Amino acid sequence: MIHSIDPRTGESVGDPFPLTSDDEVDAIVGAALAAGPAWRSADRAAALEAVAAALEANVEELWRAADAETALGETRLRGEVGRAAGQFRLFAQVLRDGGHVEAVIDHATAQPPVPDLRRMNHPLPGVAGVFAASNFPFAFSVAGGDTASALAAGCPVVVKAHDGHPATSELSWQVIRHALPDPDLLGLVRGLDAGKRLAVHPSVAAVGFTGSIPGGKAIQALIAERPDPIPFYGELGAASTPSSCCPRPPARASPRGSPPRSPSASASSAPTPGWCSSPTTPSSWCRSPRPSPRPWAGRCSPSGCRAATCAGWPGSASSPHWPKDSRGRGAFAVTPQVFVTDLATFAADLPDLVEECFGPAAVVVVYDDPADLPPVLERLDGSLTATIHATDPAEARGSAEVLLKKAGRLIWNGWPTGVAVRWAMHHGGPWPASTAAAHTSVGAAAIRRWLVPTAYQDWPAELLPPELRDDNPPGIPRRVDGVLVAGRA
Amino acid sequence: MIHSIDPRTGESVGDPFPLTSDDEVDAIVGAALAAGPAWRSADRAAALEAVAAALEANVEELWRAADAETALGETRLRGEVGRAAGQFRLFAQVLRDGGHVEAVIDHATAQPPVPDLRRMNHPLPGVAGVFAASNFPFAFSVAGGDTASALAAGCPVVVKAHDGHPATSELSWQVIRHALPDPDLLGLVRGLDAGKRLAVHPSVAAVGFTGSIPGGKAIQALIAERPDPIPFYGELGAASTPSSCCPRPPARASPRGSPPRSPSASASSAPTPGWCSSPTTPSSWCRSPRPSPRPWAGRCSPSGCRAATCAGWPGSASSPHWPKDSRGRGAFAVTPQVFVTDLATFAADLPDLVEECFGPAAVVVVYDDPADLPPVLERLDGSLTATIHATDPAEARGSAEVLLKKAGRLIWNGWPTGVAVRWAMHHGGPWPASTAAAHTSVGAAAIRRWLVPTAYQDWPAELLPPELRDDNPPGIPRRVDGVLVAGRA
Repeated sequence: MIHSIDPRTGESVGDPFPLTSDDEVDAIVGAALAAGPAWRSADRAAALEAVAAALEANVEELWRAADAETALGETRLRGEVGRAAGQFRLFAQVLRDGGHVEAVIDHATAQPPVPDLRRMNHPLPGVAGVFAASNFPFAFSVAGGDTASALAAGCPVVVKAHDGHPATSELSWQVIRHALPDPDLLGLVRGLDAGKRLAVHPSVAAVGFTGSIPGGKAIQALIAERPDPIPFYGELGAASTPSSCCPRPPARASPRGSPPRSPSASASSAPTPGWCSSPTTPSSWCRSPRPSPRPWAGRCSPSGCRAATCAGWPGSASSPHWPKDSRGRGAFAVTPQVFVTDLATFAADLPDLVEECFGPAAVVVVYDDPADLPPVLERLDGSLTATIHATDPAEARGSAEVLLKKAGRLIWNGWPTGVAVRWAMHHGGPWPASTAAAHTSVGAAAIRRWLVPTAYQDWPAELLPPELRDDNPPGIPRRVDGVLVAGRA
Repeated sequence: MIHSIDPRTGESVGDPFPLTSDDEVDAIVGAALAAGPAWRSADRAAALEAVAAALEANVEELWRAADAETALGETRLRGEVGRAAGQFRLFAQVLRDGGHVEAVIDHATAQPPVPDLRRMNHPLPGVAGVFAASNFPFAFSVAGGDTASALAAGCPVVVKAHDGHPATSELSWQVIRHALPDPDLLGLVRGLDAGKRLAVHPSVAAVGFTGSIPGGKAIQALIAERPDPIPFYGELGAASTPSSCCPRPPARASPRGSPPRSPSASASSAPTPGWCSSPTTPSSWCRSPRPSPRPWAGRCSPSGCRAATCAGWPGSASSPHWPKDSRGRGAFAVTPQVFVTDLATFAADLPDLVEECFGPAAVVVVYDDPADLPPVLERLDGSLTATIHATDPAEARGSAEVLLKKAGRLIWNGWPTGVAVRWAMHHGGPWPASTAAAHTSVGAAAIRRWLVPTAYQDWPAELLPPELRDDNPPGIPRRVDGVLVAGRA
């Protein structure tokens, strides 16, 4: 059974949710697969807008359910429901635009003698398996971008709910499935074993995952055992992943003398406890950064740890490092931490200092000369984002060139959180930020993960999809005889 | 050592080629990686056209080298050199068009407050590893589409040459590398161990492979052991793969009473020996279709086998099944075979009857009613292509709908060979046709395999790539604020 737990008290709330058995997973995937053909020919844009409207109509119930098991608060959670609804609306726009099918027509030529050839994308012939994340109970969970983009592509979806917010998952699921033309188009399964079954189910044609690096590696290993290599789109944690507690900026390099202009800088002088949305989050937070006598020894003041969920710092005899809630009643409360070091020490302590820390912590690295940064940045792992805070672009050029290879999104004088749901978003990046660096889990291009092309050679017009007919009934953008032609939209 | 062998005589010709040691692989990959940054900012379109011109200038020497070790003949081989040159020219066009970077610009908005966001594709930050195929010594080998598309994307390439045509590989490599601005941009390694080293080399960012299903599975398993999951683009054999000997149509369903309109139908009445390009090809041909007393027992007349390279039919006590060359001197000669059966027997003998057969063989399945076909077609594995020969599109609709899920390219009244190098080509398909069904190894879209997107948020214009500046200096097609705008080209 999976319990909904109030992080403010650590107490279980309401009835627990049963784990999904293997037989139930099979039935749910089977029902989703059966709902697929009608969905492919449905007015999916209108259906996605109906889902968006249903989410908004239920925002009150949704945010309260989520707050009870995540403590993320009304403002954040209302915003997240709105964001989830916005994702469904963006994909309705994407479908009406039609560019996602990437229609290409090459008419036959006599000399050289080549046949008529037309290509477009179709939905993957199967079910999309989606693994929800803990940190955004709407935007990266049942109602999140993986669900929205896969449904938009034309694929039925089965979500493995995150154990951290089971009641929110249940409610989101009910709201969405009943807004769809066929409720079987969205299935929900619970528990680790059900997730494993989902990942290897023969009717699952691709898997989307948002979560930790170890979790992503585990699912990738499962998928590698399948007889058929299906795509695995893992958006994994990385040094710049926003935490579930509060924005946790990545390791940051600041010129010596100028204070780092970051939320954590002030948090460092006046720590405010954050609320973690699940017990696993502060546990991994407390294990990282790894113990080291060097850079932060004098800066960080461990103040106790709940031994039940925190194993302490591995390899360290010192006291464990999960601060108690300052209000004394917290179950999953953590205090933001900032670690300050210099470039030479940072370079010497890599990779320990960039190990993923899923909690409110930051490492500030002070440097003297911008020219010293690129060789150290070269040694960083792949990340979802990298930010440069600077006034002179010319001075940042060297670092920018290195970061281009290291991160999927480059930000100038800003913060990585609030991943905008837009056409130009790329939320992915080099391993270990993502298992498929060419793909994004947020924004219009996320639909591409669930599409595959087909080419039609000398195919009769009666059997061609409308998107590929010469008269272009849907008025979509197409590349015709090598030239991109804008759509009528 | 790898020997160049004349398939007409079975004799080794010329000096053998040394295997590449691990240290040499490392040096070759290292040199390729070092050549990368300059290549990214080079005029790659002009360089690819120079390669095309160099291939054409050396066509005489190239086709003779290939004929000596493949026996494919002047017409076919001259055509293939032309095709390889054409591939480099197509990618020059692709680069000049600029659509491959998929530039997207979303300007900032005040309400809701969202930042300026711009996205485009960049080359993968590393070396492309390419495994050449045996069956097309130019078009799917050193000078093939994987090399051309990866170089076009901006990636240096290291090719693992196929042992079946070592002299052709060496010559192609020399011609291409010396036409490039830096010869290190194209490396060549030889031997199985060198291939393994290449697949797991930390500087290799993606691998392209054309070859058999077992070979593809072996490389995929190697790549799965890497700490970083790099993309593996395997274009594997499948039921419709054209053979290296002569066009081998896939399992084919024909209405009862109408003779199958195929080259093999006539070959069946008057068999002509084909030449296989390597000893492994007839060996796998002779093992497949598997022995069965049923459909073809009375149709096929085994006429002997060279025991040295053909192990006979596994599990069968009957005589092995590799026909001798009718001219009596053949080393790798094989005779085309056609097996005829009915739909019920075919359905009963799946999957034995659709096992890959890399040689000139076809299975003709006779049926009475087109309505009987779809349920049997549903059971076929994924394939690169599927063809319908028919006069009435309406009658073919049911089969067409099933084949859409089974093949990457659907052909009407034609033949799958002669994969046109065009914008609309898709040469890929559901597993086991390909390990990455969303990608093609032929045609303009093949470049996408070597690209990854980056998003720039509030990025200063001075640091933006020209493709993303508001004034669009290269004049490429872009999506601006949600609307696709054609380029100036």
